[in-house]
Amino acid sequence: MSKMIGKALIAQGGGPTAVINQSLVGVVLEARKFPEIVKVYGAKYGIRGIINEDFLDLTESTTHNLEQVASTPGAALGSTRDKPDAEYCQKMFETMRAHDIRYFYYIGGNDSAETCRIINEQANLAGYELRVIHIPKTIDNDLVVTDHCPGFASAAKYVAHAFAGANLDNKALQGVYVGVVMGRHAGFLTASSILAKKFPDDGPHLIYLPEKVFSVEKFLEDVRIVYDKYKRCVIAVSEGIVDADGNPMMATLKNKMECDAHGNIRLSGIGVLGDALADLIISKLNIKRVRADTLGYIQRSFLGCVSDVDKHEAREVGEKAVQYSVWHNIDGSVVIKRVGDYAVEYGLVPLNQIANKTKVMPPEFIEGDNMVTTEFRNYVKPLVGEIAVVEKLIAPAVNKII
Amino acid sequence: MSKMIGKALIAQGGGPTAVINQSLVGVVLEARKFPEIVKVYGAKYGIRGIINEDFLDLTESTTHNLEQVASTPGAALGSTRDKPDAEYCQKMFETMRAHDIRYFYYIGGNDSAETCRIINEQANLAGYELRVIHIPKTIDNDLVVTDHCPGFASAAKYVAHAFAGANLDNKALQGVYVGVVMGRHAGFLTASSILAKKFPDDGPHLIYLPEKVFSVEKFLEDVRIVYDKYKRCVIAVSEGIVDADGNPMMATLKNKMECDAHGNIRLSGIGVLGDALADLIISKLNIKRVRADTLGYIQRSFLGCVSDVDKHEAREVGEKAVQYSVWHNIDGSVVIKRVGDYAVEYGLVPLNQIANKTKVMPPEFIEGDNMVTTEFRNYVKPLVGEIAVVEKLIAPAVNKII
Repeated sequence: MSKMIGKALIAQGGGPTAVINQSLVGVVLEARKFPEIVKVYGAKYGIRGIINEDFLDLTESTTHNLEQVASTPGAALGSTRDKPDAEYCQKMFETMRAHDIRYFYYIGGNDSAETCRIINEQANLAGYELRVIHIPKTIDNDLVVTDHCPGFASAAKYVAHAFAGANLDNKALQGVYVGVVMGRHAGFLTASSILAKKFPDDGPHLIYLPEKVFSVEKFLEDVRIVYDKYKRCVIAVSEGIVDADGNPMMATLKNKMECDAHGNIRLSGIGVLGDALADLIISKLNIKRVRADTLGYIQRSFLGCVSDVDKHEAREVGEKAVQYSVWHNIDGSVVIKRVGDYAVEYGLVPLNQIANKTKVMPPEFIEGDNMVTTEFRNYVKPLVGEIAVVEKLIAPAVNKII
Repeated sequence: MSKMIGKALIAQGGGPTAVINQSLVGVVLEARKFPEIVKVYGAKYGIRGIINEDFLDLTESTTHNLEQVASTPGAALGSTRDKPDAEYCQKMFETMRAHDIRYFYYIGGNDSAETCRIINEQANLAGYELRVIHIPKTIDNDLVVTDHCPGFASAAKYVAHAFAGANLDNKALQGVYVGVVMGRHAGFLTASSILAKKFPDDGPHLIYLPEKVFSVEKFLEDVRIVYDKYKRCVIAVSEGIVDADGNPMMATLKNKMECDAHGNIRLSGIGVLGDALADLIISKLNIKRVRADTLGYIQRSFLGCVSDVDKHEAREVGEKAVQYSVWHNIDGSVVIKRVGDYAVEYGLVPLNQIANKTKVMPPEFIEGDNMVTTEFRNYVKPLVGEIAVVEKLIAPAVNKII
């Protein structure tokens, strides 16, 4: 195949991250170098922007503006959770043809990879020549094949710093602290709280992941044991923990609470899981000071909490996407291979290898049903980088006189 | 009065902050310079450590260890919410006499100032010569006399970065975002979310403070207007907002929700207020994407989010406390006076001027019932310092063809 000449279009899908704009800017700056790419457009609010013919001409953005945007969390073009079908694709192709778009880059998670797969399939069926590249992004770190996903490490850095702080707070005013972390099916982000642990008595003392069945009885027993030992307990819980039947604990506990706002308290109701677990500890273990936080949307958007490795890799997957599509004239999803401690290489795999598939924590990363392994710590540490200073007073106890 | 020779004792009270250990280390390093102070002890878990005779000898801590501890959030000595009465004081004096403690420094908020006032009063009654200095600390910024309180600016920096991120997230996936911020009576911390606003369309679009009566009807109307204008809305709400009768909205809305765990859902139940406001918006305004976060304990403990001004001032109030007590042989509470843009001087005021009193946002800092003024922004900005980069794409829209 000869190289195609035409315009490039980039869009962002799914939940924003701290570094998704790095990938955006990686694509734009790299694409502007290639003579085959005559213009670089950005679609507003993901693929919906293609339906609405709502494009920005990023060929005209200054490099400084782009670099500043790259450092900004969120999705600068706007995002969407739209999922295209054949009809949706026909509408997109109509707009794309009109603008002679021949390169399409979509930054997102496994839903966005599925969107790319569908667009690629439909473009082939329609005989519309279009390069389609999926650029990985997700704080959940749940894409298959790739060693890890851009966006994850910065969210993990936030989670680690949040739990390190919560641990210090809990140490100063003793009690039980429950922190609920994002991750509906994969526990990578919750597990990253382990980086908050410096000294042996530091929290998190217990980590509950969606990969393991959650038992209320076992949970209460775990908390009691830790509390008896340290007079305090810091717990990291994934929002996605499930009971033995695979039902989300959020639903199970909500029913136990028998709350009723208008007969329809949201399942995704922020705060519900943490509050329910805290209530359980208070009522069943008779511990007075119990606090629960739900880390919420701030864990994926907090300004200024970015991992250096994540920042650079997010930029590079954007650059590689353009190179693969122009030099090699192929479609696919960019993946990261870990080849050293720490070093990576990039690759491209067929879209159907990534689309709609979910990776969860492998068994070797999980210890028992309430902790993660050193192997996981070694996996995540180079991604997140250094944690800020935590130190405790080193001073001898004064001999008692009275 | 001649200068007293004896030991110094330092303790920490109330909720930890990001810089309370700066004040601790300020006291320790400064006290170790004075020949009048023969040893510097730290009481574990606040004044409870005096009752328990549970002291660390900080005279023996290395400077490096102390400097590392200073950079660590939380209360390195441990904290307490104990409040002493006459009997409690007698027990404390027994321990203090036994160890010949003549200088007492207590870092905390208005409760801790009250503790200092009581100890001072009781020491005078008991004829026990003891210098008592209160060192200010509170993320609520609600101490009277002082221009602001160490600990506030770092928490405000966290809140500003959290809302800046939440605003970007909300911009990418449009909807309504509610963030609940700490501050039971004073709205300073919630108001600081204004620093997240860079561009005119940025959130927070609405800010609700405990100083103003909260009306559900007005709130829904405010949200509708913003949402109609921007297709999105970011809201900062203080946990302490009250209805026209002065009742906390958390209680009012909880009752409306008729939740019942065991007949005793916690009033301080993290998540309840945010979830209730989100439910209101969903049900009354028929807006689909509504999310609520409660910033929780992380806003006062997050590792690595420290304002430079706050860090230095927290250190200095600790140093000044020692200087006042030794050079001037007086009791009191250290206060900060703003004398330039930006510059401060320190002073000492009698304990009863600070103890148990609460400062709230003055009228000139509040605009209407859902916003803060430029005057407040000018007040808080130099305390917090620079916010991380936020930029949006500057690129022309592409002309529509279809």
